[in-house]
Amino acid sequence: MTDSAVPGEGSAHGSADDSADPDRDGAAEAALDLTADPDLLTAALVDIPSVSGTEQRIADLVESALRRLGRYEVLRSGNTVLARTELGRPTRVVLAGHLDTVPIADNVPSRTDGDVLHGCGTTDMKSGDAMLLHLAATLESPSRDLTFVFYDCEEVESARNGLGRIQRELPEWLAGDLALLGEPTNGQVEGGCQGTLTAEVTVRGHRAHSARSWMGRNAIHLAEPVLARLAAATPRTVEIDGCTYREGLNAVKIRGGVASNVIPDECVVTVNHRFAPDRSAGQAADLLRELFDGFEFELLDAADGALPGLSAPAAADFVAAAGGVAVAKLGWTDVARFSALGIPAVNFGPGDPSLAHTREEHVSRTQIREMTDVLRRFLG
Amino acid sequence: MTDSAVPGEGSAHGSADDSADPDRDGAAEAALDLTADPDLLTAALVDIPSVSGTEQRIADLVESALRRLGRYEVLRSGNTVLARTELGRPTRVVLAGHLDTVPIADNVPSRTDGDVLHGCGTTDMKSGDAMLLHLAATLESPSRDLTFVFYDCEEVESARNGLGRIQRELPEWLAGDLALLGEPTNGQVEGGCQGTLTAEVTVRGHRAHSARSWMGRNAIHLAEPVLARLAAATPRTVEIDGCTYREGLNAVKIRGGVASNVIPDECVVTVNHRFAPDRSAGQAADLLRELFDGFEFELLDAADGALPGLSAPAAADFVAAAGGVAVAKLGWTDVARFSALGIPAVNFGPGDPSLAHTREEHVSRTQIREMTDVLRRFLG
Repeated sequence: MTDSAVPGEGSAHGSADDSADPDRDGAAEAALDLTADPDLLTAALVDIPSVSGTEQRIADLVESALRRLGRYEVLRSGNTVLARTELGRPTRVVLAGHLDTVPIADNVPSRTDGDVLHGCGTTDMKSGDAMLLHLAATLESPSRDLTFVFYDCEEVESARNGLGRIQRELPEWLAGDLALLGEPTNGQVEGGCQGTLTAEVTVRGHRAHSARSWMGRNAIHLAEPVLARLAAATPRTVEIDGCTYREGLNAVKIRGGVASNVIPDECVVTVNHRFAPDRSAGQAADLLRELFDGFEFELLDAADGALPGLSAPAAADFVAAAGGVAVAKLGWTDVARFSALGIPAVNFGPGDPSLAHTREEHVSRTQIREMTDVLRRFLG
Repeated sequence: MTDSAVPGEGSAHGSADDSADPDRDGAAEAALDLTADPDLLTAALVDIPSVSGTEQRIADLVESALRRLGRYEVLRSGNTVLARTELGRPTRVVLAGHLDTVPIADNVPSRTDGDVLHGCGTTDMKSGDAMLLHLAATLESPSRDLTFVFYDCEEVESARNGLGRIQRELPEWLAGDLALLGEPTNGQVEGGCQGTLTAEVTVRGHRAHSARSWMGRNAIHLAEPVLARLAAATPRTVEIDGCTYREGLNAVKIRGGVASNVIPDECVVTVNHRFAPDRSAGQAADLLRELFDGFEFELLDAADGALPGLSAPAAADFVAAAGGVAVAKLGWTDVARFSALGIPAVNFGPGDPSLAHTREEHVSRTQIREMTDVLRRFLG
C-alpha cells in the first residue's frame, strides 16, 4: 500500500496513542486516522489482519481512535467496541459492522489499482467499517443520536458472534429506531433479510451384497422421490415494504453408500431453504416436514429472517435519502438480530456481495466515498 | 483350540520339517498333519494368521507338507504353492484355494462349539483349503490327474492376486479339464460366476450462492432421472447350463454438495452392475452407457463373469458326483480366471458365503467332512 491512512507497524511515521487505555497491549500502536478519506481508511483497515478470533489489534486501534474523538461514550467488550452519543435527539440510529474477515488468501496487504482497491475484507466489510468510522469522526453534530457497534467473530459459528454477545449481555446498547449494518450491498439499500434453515432428509433401506441385491432395499434408489419433490417445488416470491424476497429450496448435499459391493441402507439429502421474512423459521420448517412426509426429517439449524420494517419513519427517511428505492437482502445477515429486537434494519455497504469470501475481493473507491456521502446526508 | 491338528508355534509337540527347503526360514516350523480330519485341519489353518500380504508362514507349512507327501511335483512362487501329479490320466482337475484372509477381528485362534467351528477364515476359505489339502494327502491313486494351487492375496486388489500372477507367469500350471475353487458355497456346486462392473455417472450443474439459487443449476436435483432410471430398470434372469443368473443394477454410492450455502455443481452416482456370464463386461458397459445417455459415464472397473461350462464331460461328472444339481454363483470369484482360459470352472467349498468377512464367521464341521467326501468320490 502506498497511500494507507495508517502507517504500518514499526513505521517511522507511527505516533504513540496517548489516549488509549494504558493497561492495554496496543497502547503503543500507530493510531488510525479516522478523518482520512473513507477509501484510504478502508485500505488501512485491510492492512490490519483480523481473521475471526484475532481481532484484538484492530479492536484496540478502533477503540483508541473513537476514544480520542472525545464525544462518544465508549465501551469495550471482548473484541467488540461500542460507542454512542447522548445528544437527546428524537431518534437513534445504530450503525454496526464486523471487524473480522475470513482467512487471508494472499490478499493482504491491500493493493490499489486506479479506482479499485483489492484485498481481504475490502468488500466484506472493512469498507463498510471505514464508512462508519469516518462518519463517527466527521459528523460533529448529527441530527440523530448514534450508536456504533464494531464487533468480532461474524464469519464463524453463530455462538461466537460479537453482536450476539452484546444482544445477550448489553441489549440496551442496541436500542434505536433504525439499525444499519454496513454489509456489502453494492450501493443499494437492502431491507431486512431472508431466513435460512438446513435440514436432513434421511431415506432408509436394507443392506445386502450387491450380487444378491434383491435381498436388500436400495436407499439411494428410494431417495428418488425426495429429489423429485425438490425439483418440482416452486418457491414463492414475496413482496414486503416494496422489497421482493425470492425464496429457494435446494438439496445442498447428498450422501449414501457403503462400498461398491453393498446395497446401501441409508441416503441422506441435506436441504437448504431460504424463506421470506413473513414466515418464521418454525413455520418454514413445518412446511418442509410436510413436503417430505414419509421420510425422516431432522432440522440442523434455522435462523429467522428479518422484516425490513421500512414503513417506520426513520427507515423511510433513510430510504428516501438513499434515492427512494430499497430491495430485499437475499442472504442472511446480522440485521436479523435487530429485527428480533423489533428494530427496523437495513443493510447498506460498499462492495459486491458476490465477491465476499473470494480471493479476488475488491471494491470501488468511488463507491465507498459516494455511499459515505449518502449516509452523511441522512445522519447530518 | 484344544483339538488342533497342528501344535502351536514353539509347542513341545512340534517336529522339525526335514523335507522343507533348508534355505527357507520356516524350515524349523511345526508341521501340518494333512491326514487329520479336514475339520481339525481347518482349525489348524485358522490358527496360522495369514492376512493378505502375510502368508509366508502358512505357505511355508503348506509347501513342506505337500513336499513331504512325496508324490507331487511342488513349485513355490512367492507365497503361492503349486503341486501336481503326472499320472497320465485322461483328465486333469485343477483344485484351487486362497490362503489369505481378511483382517482378523478378535476371531483367531479358532474356537470349537460342538459342530460349529468359529474363527477368521473358517468360511472364507480355510475350510476349503483343508478339504483340498486333506484330499492331496489321502488320495493315493486318483482317477484324474490333479493340480493344486494354494495362492496368496485374494482378499486385496486384483493386481496382487496370486492366482492372477500364476495365470500370467506360469499359465501351464493352470491347464486342465475342470477347475474347482474351494470358495464357500454351503454344500452346493455353484457354476461359473456373474460379471461385475462399477461405473460413475456424473451430473453437472452450476454453482451459486443458495440465497440466489436461481442463478445456479442444482446438480443434485438434476440427478433425479439417474435414480429414476435405476429404480425402473428390470434386471434380467438368465439360465445357462441349468444355472439361473439373476442380474442386479444398483446405485451403491452417491455424493454431491459443497457447503450448505452453495448450490452444488456436481453429483456423482456410483453404479454397480452384476451381469450374467452370457455378456462380456464390455457389452454390459455399453448397455449402461446407453441407459445413462445424456450424462457423463466413466467405467471404474469391470470383470467378465465365468460361463459354468457344465456340459463339458469332467464338469458334468462332478455335478453328478455332487448330487446332480448346480446353481449359479452370484458373486464374482477367481473361477473367472479359469473361464478366461477356456476351462469349465465351479465353486465348491464349505461355509455360508454370506458369513465371509464377518466377525461371526463360522462353519459346520460336518459340512467340511461331507463335502470332502463328495469330492473324494469324484477324484478317487
